[in-house]
Amino acid sequence: MRLDVVTIFPEYLEPLNVSLVGKARARGQLDVHVHDLRTWTHDRHHTVDDTPYGGGPGMVMKTEPWGEALDTVLADGYEAGHGRPALIVPTPSGRPFTQDLAVRLSEQPWLIFTPARYEGIDRRVVDEYATRMPVHEVSIGDYVLAGGEAAVLVVTEAVARLLPGVLGNAESHRDDSFAPAMAGLLEGPVYTKPPLWRGRDIPDVLLSGHHGKIARWRRDETLRRTTAHRPDLIERCAPDAFDKKDREMLSILGWQPDPEGERTGRFWRRTEDVEE
Amino acid sequence: MRLDVVTIFPEYLEPLNVSLVGKARARGQLDVHVHDLRTWTHDRHHTVDDTPYGGGPGMVMKTEPWGEALDTVLADGYEAGHGRPALIVPTPSGRPFTQDLAVRLSEQPWLIFTPARYEGIDRRVVDEYATRMPVHEVSIGDYVLAGGEAAVLVVTEAVARLLPGVLGNAESHRDDSFAPAMAGLLEGPVYTKPPLWRGRDIPDVLLSGHHGKIARWRRDETLRRTTAHRPDLIERCAPDAFDKKDREMLSILGWQPDPEGERTGRFWRRTEDVEE
Repeated sequence: MRLDVVTIFPEYLEPLNVSLVGKARARGQLDVHVHDLRTWTHDRHHTVDDTPYGGGPGMVMKTEPWGEALDTVLADGYEAGHGRPALIVPTPSGRPFTQDLAVRLSEQPWLIFTPARYEGIDRRVVDEYATRMPVHEVSIGDYVLAGGEAAVLVVTEAVARLLPGVLGNAESHRDDSFAPAMAGLLEGPVYTKPPLWRGRDIPDVLLSGHHGKIARWRRDETLRRTTAHRPDLIERCAPDAFDKKDREMLSILGWQPDPEGERTGRFWRRTEDVEE
Repeated sequence: MRLDVVTIFPEYLEPLNVSLVGKARARGQLDVHVHDLRTWTHDRHHTVDDTPYGGGPGMVMKTEPWGEALDTVLADGYEAGHGRPALIVPTPSGRPFTQDLAVRLSEQPWLIFTPARYEGIDRRVVDEYATRMPVHEVSIGDYVLAGGEAAVLVVTEAVARLLPGVLGNAESHRDDSFAPAMAGLLEGPVYTKPPLWRGRDIPDVLLSGHHGKIARWRRDETLRRTTAHRPDLIERCAPDAFDKKDREMLSILGWQPDPEGERTGRFWRRTEDVEE
């Protein structure tokens, strides 16, 4: 997979040399190119922004440097024989970036990222390139960053770890929170040696050697933690996502089926805070 | 504000030297300490992980190195005269990190981050330090990363830009998507010079000089974009969040008040995809 990033802070992308993404590059699984947007400015001050039409605070990134940068990157990648790229535009006004999208992007041959600063990029840049390739305007969460570079690190890491052979242990995808097998619920607590640390021991069941009981305990902890931290994920679970023991635990946690579920898409509601 | 980060990939935190956070450090507004967790291991292989109790794939980060690391960091910070820290634990099983939490964290004197790798940290570490300080287990979004370091960059950037004097233009907070004044709706498109680029012009209204019309156009674009990318944000808006013109636009976009709103907390529903 080829990755291009155009940015005014190339040094922010240094983490792409480290850890999992860095190793995937070293093995030749990822071909990463980080470009300085100011390369494509032609004035003495390397200007990339100007005041917004219609007034208001902040600055808007100009069309011309982005246009020249993307044209150069596209020409280079096509010349190197890559298939059609997808353009990833990190923006707080985007659709939420999700694990589903990470999976779809991991199947692409080539991703181009345009992290912006200030109030964002002149809209015409997205309009222009959307005529030539799929564009994903994505938000990584409901908070405001200083620019899109941190989002590029997040998206590239989420995508890179899904590439074949990148994770050492193929199994370790399996229990990921948000991986399909977990049905989007949260993982409960984990423990390792020693069995006693600063007066704190571990749940007996984990030493029982009884696989069924351990699996049940983990499932209950998943339901407990999801209830405490992400009740929205339980609400959206289809009624048949839960077996009899799950339903007993959900009942203890104060959940009951919502008769309006079919209409609202929210199948469970919680009437009492019984246990957190 | 003091920031401590304990990690097995210190070099991943290089972006803390760059851009807004880097400038805040240079000005002395942020005192950042990045620590290598392996400093607090005592075996030849600098082991930080072990197999999970109860079996299963993946590895769990051990209590001892984290305990020694946090004790050292705490002793150092208290000696330097800092008030009680908050512990930020990035984990996919956490509560969602939001702009509200960024604001609250920006008022703290001292934040300590514990980005994990593998299947996470032995639960007893959080249990132990939760007896001494507030702990925030946070998830930056519904996707899986290789580790918590990217989340640390996201949280520190979201927090740092809220510190007094860090952003050049005090006003540029105002229109942030997710800032309170926007009532959590998304910003629409922005434009700057030139007025014509590759055959693409800009909306006439932005050249009209008519402030009222420009404000109305921007509000309509906000409603349009939020409908397309984040209908969940509209659903949750209280009925009185919208004036008469807003309601006209919402109606065009297919929204109508949901009579069940008081009970469900979702005050608007969309019955037709009229316009995107």
